[in-house]
Amino acid sequence: MMKIYLCGSLDAVALNEWQRHLQAEMPEDQVLTTLEPEQNAEISVAVVANPTPGSLYPLPSLRLIQSLWAGVDRLVADTTLPPGVPVCRMVDPQMNVAMAETGQWAVLALHRGFFGYARQQAKAQWQPLAQRRADELRVLVLGWGQMGRTLGLRLNAMGYRVAAWRSRAAATAQPQQVDGVEMHIGTEALGAALGQADILVNLLPLTPSTRGLLNASCFAALPRGASVVNLARGAHLVEADLLAALDAGQLSHAVLDVFNTEPLPASHPFWQHPAITVLPHAAAQTDPRSAAAVVAANVRALKAGEPLMHQVDFTLGY
Amino acid sequence: MMKIYLCGSLDAVALNEWQRHLQAEMPEDQVLTTLEPEQNAEISVAVVANPTPGSLYPLPSLRLIQSLWAGVDRLVADTTLPPGVPVCRMVDPQMNVAMAETGQWAVLALHRGFFGYARQQAKAQWQPLAQRRADELRVLVLGWGQMGRTLGLRLNAMGYRVAAWRSRAAATAQPQQVDGVEMHIGTEALGAALGQADILVNLLPLTPSTRGLLNASCFAALPRGASVVNLARGAHLVEADLLAALDAGQLSHAVLDVFNTEPLPASHPFWQHPAITVLPHAAAQTDPRSAAAVVAANVRALKAGEPLMHQVDFTLGY
Repeated sequence: MMKIYLCGSLDAVALNEWQRHLQAEMPEDQVLTTLEPEQNAEISVAVVANPTPGSLYPLPSLRLIQSLWAGVDRLVADTTLPPGVPVCRMVDPQMNVAMAETGQWAVLALHRGFFGYARQQAKAQWQPLAQRRADELRVLVLGWGQMGRTLGLRLNAMGYRVAAWRSRAAATAQPQQVDGVEMHIGTEALGAALGQADILVNLLPLTPSTRGLLNASCFAALPRGASVVNLARGAHLVEADLLAALDAGQLSHAVLDVFNTEPLPASHPFWQHPAITVLPHAAAQTDPRSAAAVVAANVRALKAGEPLMHQVDFTLGY
Repeated sequence: MMKIYLCGSLDAVALNEWQRHLQAEMPEDQVLTTLEPEQNAEISVAVVANPTPGSLYPLPSLRLIQSLWAGVDRLVADTTLPPGVPVCRMVDPQMNVAMAETGQWAVLALHRGFFGYARQQAKAQWQPLAQRRADELRVLVLGWGQMGRTLGLRLNAMGYRVAAWRSRAAATAQPQQVDGVEMHIGTEALGAALGQADILVNLLPLTPSTRGLLNASCFAALPRGASVVNLARGAHLVEADLLAALDAGQLSHAVLDVFNTEPLPASHPFWQHPAITVLPHAAAQTDPRSAAAVVAANVRALKAGEPLMHQVDFTLGY
């Protein structure tokens, strides 16, 4: 029996739901949501959703920190994490699907002009736009993890010309084409990839090397009139550069799910910008119904001394 | 060599583009866009886009009327068509894909709350909504022609629970399941199919028996809070019934591409209704680049005395 501490920025309803699903997946273990000080030394596993920095520091017997969220940039930036304890990302197949759905919706809306029709509707304006075929649109997916791959393969199946960029080669040899998706690898390959992208979808992890990647020089490298979809992290985007590129006509539209400050402040210019679609960090939520089993599998691996899944490499930051 | 008359409600640019593509596909024939009276008797084929009623009447040698549009309800209602001349619908594979894209976009937006997020954006409101899995959504496609099938199979591949309804069995024996899509056939099966539909997508042909099908009793048969997507013809929908069902909360949203009066008048209540998405009859346009080859294939069939493709059955109306 292991004692598992569930904590983080979850409201009471969500905390309760997670506890119920986790407990059901790990009936032999005990999932706690509050700790008395004398229990600190009994906790082997922390299951966390953006925990307050410092909150895991008092747990001396911790052997696994399992994130409930896919993005671990805030977690790995917590300098008070107990040293040497492995941190694992959440890779929830249902979350990958949810992210792919949001990406498909954004690409379809940009391709077929549905954001433009919404603007026309507000003015009672009837004006069909020219119709392009999917194979006339080139979509570049930044990041080829589970989410990027799920989206890229779906877009490819819909007939789009899909390319992907990743910052480094995978550990295994990487073919130049994966199921019809053209792969671009490494910083030097980024400029050429951007030059052929009508729609850019960002699904990169946030690391020191990807922070601010969506900036003026990135936008300038895109063909004039391209669109940007940011589903990863707000800090990937230099907000002032986006506004300038939209106002200059270099970009035609942006779909943003993530922001430097969340919730996005009511006074922020993105809310009312006609060429920006704002989503409230809702592109993909972890689904407790499927993700609890992912946590349980890692706890079993820990007990059995087997390799953990999706363990964070601190030198890479994800 | 055949003389082919291209006419209908096309602007000069579109008329020119169609003429160019048709002429390229049929280099041995002559595609005309204007006729001197003495040429009337030379015309064997009319290629038409909603021609003015009566405009084909003076053509005594006509052997084929080929529509450029998929919907032929206005054409078959023209009582001045030369009697006995076969009329063929356009079945353009690219148009089917365009229609499926619009349907996918509408279903994704309804499923994932993107219309709601757009309303929130207008108020600078940040509120993530509960996330459902695709397999928790039941989509009913009305009409199982080329367009309905293309959409239904794509939605099924995305994980939705897809059912389809058609008014009559196909000439060939019809299985109850087609690639995972549950088939409902005939008027008596409609009520049960509606009762299990979270999203209803209409892709029926407009005929005397489908006119006004989207009415109060249809909406009442749907589960409370369902959504309706009309991509077929405006006359399928009883507009007042839709407004009443939305206002009563029986329906939560409607996506409409077609209307009784087009362009939709600026004073029409649909434009400003928060639960109605208006598209300017842009869900799927015939693509001259692919459709010209479809016309040419039928002209070849005519010359060879072979069966015509997609010939209208006047007793059915499509």
